[in-house]
Amino acid sequence: MSSIKIKIQLVANDNIAMGPGKADLLEAIQQKGSISAAALSMEMSYKRAWDLVSIMNKSFKQAIIATAVGGDKGGGAQVTEFGLQILAQYRAIEAKANLAVEGETKALMRMLIDC
Amino acid sequence: MSSIKIKIQLVANDNIAMGPGKADLLEAIQQKGSISAAALSMEMSYKRAWDLVSIMNKSFKQAIIATAVGGDKGGGAQVTEFGLQILAQYRAIEAKANLAVEGETKALMRMLIDC
Repeated sequence: MSSIKIKIQLVANDNIAMGPGKADLLEAIQQKGSISAAALSMEMSYKRAWDLVSIMNKSFKQAIIATAVGGDKGGGAQVTEFGLQILAQYRAIEAKANLAVEGETKALMRMLIDC
Repeated sequence: MSSIKIKIQLVANDNIAMGPGKADLLEAIQQKGSISAAALSMEMSYKRAWDLVSIMNKSFKQAIIATAVGGDKGGGAQVTEFGLQILAQYRAIEAKANLAVEGETKALMRMLIDC
């Protein structure tokens, strides 16, 4: 099978502030309500998920993920309002970039051996 | 410094048939006239350059790189006419995708801490 992937990476001070993996992680945190559950659902180590969250939080002007310490549920995390805006903007850029080159990418894919 | 990178990857049978690194390598081979000189100019190992060339050549319907064995110059390589067409199509897709989301990427970059 062949496909075209358009990866958008937002780079800040040599860190990738936002990219395909971080966007997926944000969506998983939003859905699961904690970083650990999100990491598990993505088959990602807890440490790696925390590292990605940390990079996002220090790259943007406001926090992307808010974490709660302790409490009945033993913590938990959620994507902030600001984080949801960044995520929506990122997904919109992905969609628009893909749409813009749809015809050209199909033409290029026809040059592959399995098409 | 912050920036947005839009990486286009053409995937065929789990291999990346064309992507940013392979496109740069094609341009270097075109300029240098051999895979070894191209690899050197990109600070890439000769083996890795050959592996990338091999993936490209087996992914597309026609050869992307033609190599000459022996002769006065001890070989050499050049991008085929077909390879040049693929490269041009790829660069055009990159440029069009970037242009399509220029305004949106600038807006997103303004949310980064160093902007």
